[in-house]
Amino acid sequence: MNGKLEQLKALIGESRDLEMAALLLEWDQQTYMPPGGAAARAEQLATLKRLAHERYVAPEVGRLLAELKQNGIEADYDSDEASIVRFNTREHDRKRRVPADLVSEIARAASLAEAAWERARETSDFALFRPHLENMFALKRGWAECFQPADIYDPLLDEYEPGLKTAEARKIFAELKAGLVPLVKAIAPKAEAVDDACLHREYDEQKQWDLGVEAARLFGFDFGRGRQDRSAHPFTTNFSRDDVRLTTRVMRNLLTSSLMSTMHEAGHGMYEQGISPALARTYLDEGTSLGVHESQSRLWENLVGRSLGFWRFFFPRAQAAFPEQLADQNVESFHRAINKVRPSLIRVEADEVTYNLHIMLRFELEQEVLNGAVKVADLPEAWNARMKEYLGVAPADDAEGVLQDIHWADGYIGYFTTYTLGNLLSVQFFDRACKDIPSLPAQIAAGEFADLLNWLRQKIHRHGRKFTMGELVQRVTGGPLSAEPYLEYLRRKYQSIYGLDNVRSKPTS
Amino acid sequence: MNGKLEQLKALIGESRDLEMAALLLEWDQQTYMPPGGAAARAEQLATLKRLAHERYVAPEVGRLLAELKQNGIEADYDSDEASIVRFNTREHDRKRRVPADLVSEIARAASLAEAAWERARETSDFALFRPHLENMFALKRGWAECFQPADIYDPLLDEYEPGLKTAEARKIFAELKAGLVPLVKAIAPKAEAVDDACLHREYDEQKQWDLGVEAARLFGFDFGRGRQDRSAHPFTTNFSRDDVRLTTRVMRNLLTSSLMSTMHEAGHGMYEQGISPALARTYLDEGTSLGVHESQSRLWENLVGRSLGFWRFFFPRAQAAFPEQLADQNVESFHRAINKVRPSLIRVEADEVTYNLHIMLRFELEQEVLNGAVKVADLPEAWNARMKEYLGVAPADDAEGVLQDIHWADGYIGYFTTYTLGNLLSVQFFDRACKDIPSLPAQIAAGEFADLLNWLRQKIHRHGRKFTMGELVQRVTGGPLSAEPYLEYLRRKYQSIYGLDNVRSKPTS
Repeated sequence: MNGKLEQLKALIGESRDLEMAALLLEWDQQTYMPPGGAAARAEQLATLKRLAHERYVAPEVGRLLAELKQNGIEADYDSDEASIVRFNTREHDRKRRVPADLVSEIARAASLAEAAWERARETSDFALFRPHLENMFALKRGWAECFQPADIYDPLLDEYEPGLKTAEARKIFAELKAGLVPLVKAIAPKAEAVDDACLHREYDEQKQWDLGVEAARLFGFDFGRGRQDRSAHPFTTNFSRDDVRLTTRVMRNLLTSSLMSTMHEAGHGMYEQGISPALARTYLDEGTSLGVHESQSRLWENLVGRSLGFWRFFFPRAQAAFPEQLADQNVESFHRAINKVRPSLIRVEADEVTYNLHIMLRFELEQEVLNGAVKVADLPEAWNARMKEYLGVAPADDAEGVLQDIHWADGYIGYFTTYTLGNLLSVQFFDRACKDIPSLPAQIAAGEFADLLNWLRQKIHRHGRKFTMGELVQRVTGGPLSAEPYLEYLRRKYQSIYGLDNVRSKPTS
Repeated sequence: MNGKLEQLKALIGESRDLEMAALLLEWDQQTYMPPGGAAARAEQLATLKRLAHERYVAPEVGRLLAELKQNGIEADYDSDEASIVRFNTREHDRKRRVPADLVSEIARAASLAEAAWERARETSDFALFRPHLENMFALKRGWAECFQPADIYDPLLDEYEPGLKTAEARKIFAELKAGLVPLVKAIAPKAEAVDDACLHREYDEQKQWDLGVEAARLFGFDFGRGRQDRSAHPFTTNFSRDDVRLTTRVMRNLLTSSLMSTMHEAGHGMYEQGISPALARTYLDEGTSLGVHESQSRLWENLVGRSLGFWRFFFPRAQAAFPEQLADQNVESFHRAINKVRPSLIRVEADEVTYNLHIMLRFELEQEVLNGAVKVADLPEAWNARMKEYLGVAPADDAEGVLQDIHWADGYIGYFTTYTLGNLLSVQFFDRACKDIPSLPAQIAAGEFADLLNWLRQKIHRHGRKFTMGELVQRVTGGPLSAEPYLEYLRRKYQSIYGLDNVRSKPTS
């Protein structure tokens, strides 16, 4: 059996090497590639991805997986061996379902749609983007139909969050909505109680960079096995557990932009750095889902990085870096500033309270377009109406409405949902960590993060893709995915910051 | 026929994409990769290179090449089509000659030898390196024997300089030796006539960097299709003609280190940037040989960059960047400083006059080891004796003698020769350019380089690998490779700098 497992690992290891090489090409494209490099790079990426795919879905891989199953390798569910076969059987079957031509067609359509989206957003002219978006929704519908799903949205969700069903996600969003809308309404009249003007002063870029790196290093991101570079939009990627690349951007007039994004990306990065080396090149060597990945970034960014405890420790360091700019602040006023709630039009600028309403709107509209309830042509209007309903604000034009995100142009339909899952999971995991490590809040206020990181490594990171999100949350917290801990966290935190009375959820409709 | 050519191009284009991706992985390794990344990177590189090789030597490629030949595609020798088939037939045959196992064994041996070489050099202990070097010479002898050569050194040379025979190289080196040894001897007593102390003052790193970039940009390196980064050792690589990466290192106490290396690497880079786009992904899309490549870097570094004319234009810019450090210099004294001749132990620090003697020594010793005249164990002694003979200096230990270069550890036997070819060719090409563009010296002194670059593009760059070095030098200069123009250039330049009487070549022995 070992011989067959070694054969399997050698075969899929080669595909994985090609994928990792492609990720480096993409990282380079976002960080250092000169403008002229784009055309050849696109060809190189297409070749690498095509070869990786061809090798992964080869009949030989399927045969080895089947033989290993027959030989009972899956018996010890938690073992590396069983997990490698279980995960790759699922993934191999899934990837074989979609004709290669359809995959290429989606990639081609995405590159055209992306260009159209850029022009449309610049001129705030949805009509330029509409035919591309119609085409993309049709293609992704066709893609989803390859899996003959009960609910057309299931395979789209499953692509980013394996195992999660649409019905379950709907239930979660309903709970969230019932809790969030009243909270937003309770905060609205007190908006001016928090002043965040101090964040918008002039902050030297290099000092901002250094402060972010200092936080990431303190958290435990290993710069011997990773680095940070600049890019237009922050992201994290990696080419092995030992080579993890964060990126950020620095804005001279917004202290929190690079600082909080570095904490966020370091959270993603530490997840990858913590995966068991035994899983290298097996396709289990990455975070198990986008939702769980986002739970790690949000945990460090929000549960740690926006907590009063953390700033009791870190504010003196920020003040040392920016003595003039922060001279009129104390830790409490600064903590309030970085947690100001402001219903706004743009998702990526949203605070913890309003963020998930942006996601819910997308989650709903994606399904309504797929099931025909909303036409693509009517999306701008539907978007604006729902913004008004959930957040009480209305876009002046489509650039700050339906055209704000690139995801749909790229065919990432079903992806947004994982941002919300990440928020919910971050609190479920953090609550559990606080139970397991009673001194955790005190540790954080003392700038000690090793116990938290070790806990995350043991409970989550090292497993890579061995367990699905559903399995993992059950193993770690003893219960299923739930919105209630997140709502409870928000209420506790923001009732205190804004001096609110108790806010209850509306009964779910 | 077009159908078959397209098939061939698609097949080899995929291999080429894999090779280009591997080059990016190697570039990243030398510039930005964190230390932890090394192990996984080695595996990824091995996979990319193995797949590229397998696909390139596939029988299908051979079949298509043979059919295209049969159909007479090679009739129009200079055409892209004929050249693609001619070059790839030769390359395909050559790569199929060597068993894949031997290629892997050499790669493995090289990585062990490199590690041993590093330790040996640090401690100046040749004994640590000896067994690895013996093994490497034996492996490369075996590799060369796959080609059943008349002279065992021929295939080794051919690997880096296609078409050049050992006998021809020997003749060239004999001419060089006859000319260089008397010149070195004539300069020796006048060593103190040139003072280069001004180069060793404190120079701000960023300003050095900027000055080098300014020179590269003026020469015509296109930063929209390339960039420059830092690395431990300067090099140039590229992933298409439109994405060319230079690297350099900056030394605070040596103005010429980064400045001249940037000019040198920009010369390599402009060659790649000038290759015809029609040759993309055909394996003809790179410089035709290491010797011709080095001719381009040396032309810009030495023929332009160390000329008095260039500094008439550029010295005021250098002085503007470093007014204090260069206050006591004028263009003539500065020009003399950057051209000081100093017989020294280390190749990479050698001046134009002594450089090729370092190469000749290696060219001779490589052959003597291969034909058994010198044992690897006796290399240090042979090295030191020959240094004394050619340059009049003797290494104090093996670290500054036989252990100074990494090349042999990597299996690059035959490679050194191309450095000298580059020097000779740079003068042959530049002399021709001066005949074709009579105003060239005046243009250079006015900071105008466009005519020279266009001339190089037309005569050399655009052809990529269509013509061998031998063909190219004949086409461009009307004659064969020759040492005499280089010797004549050196005599003219250094007689003037050092105020020498006429120096003649010794009769060749």
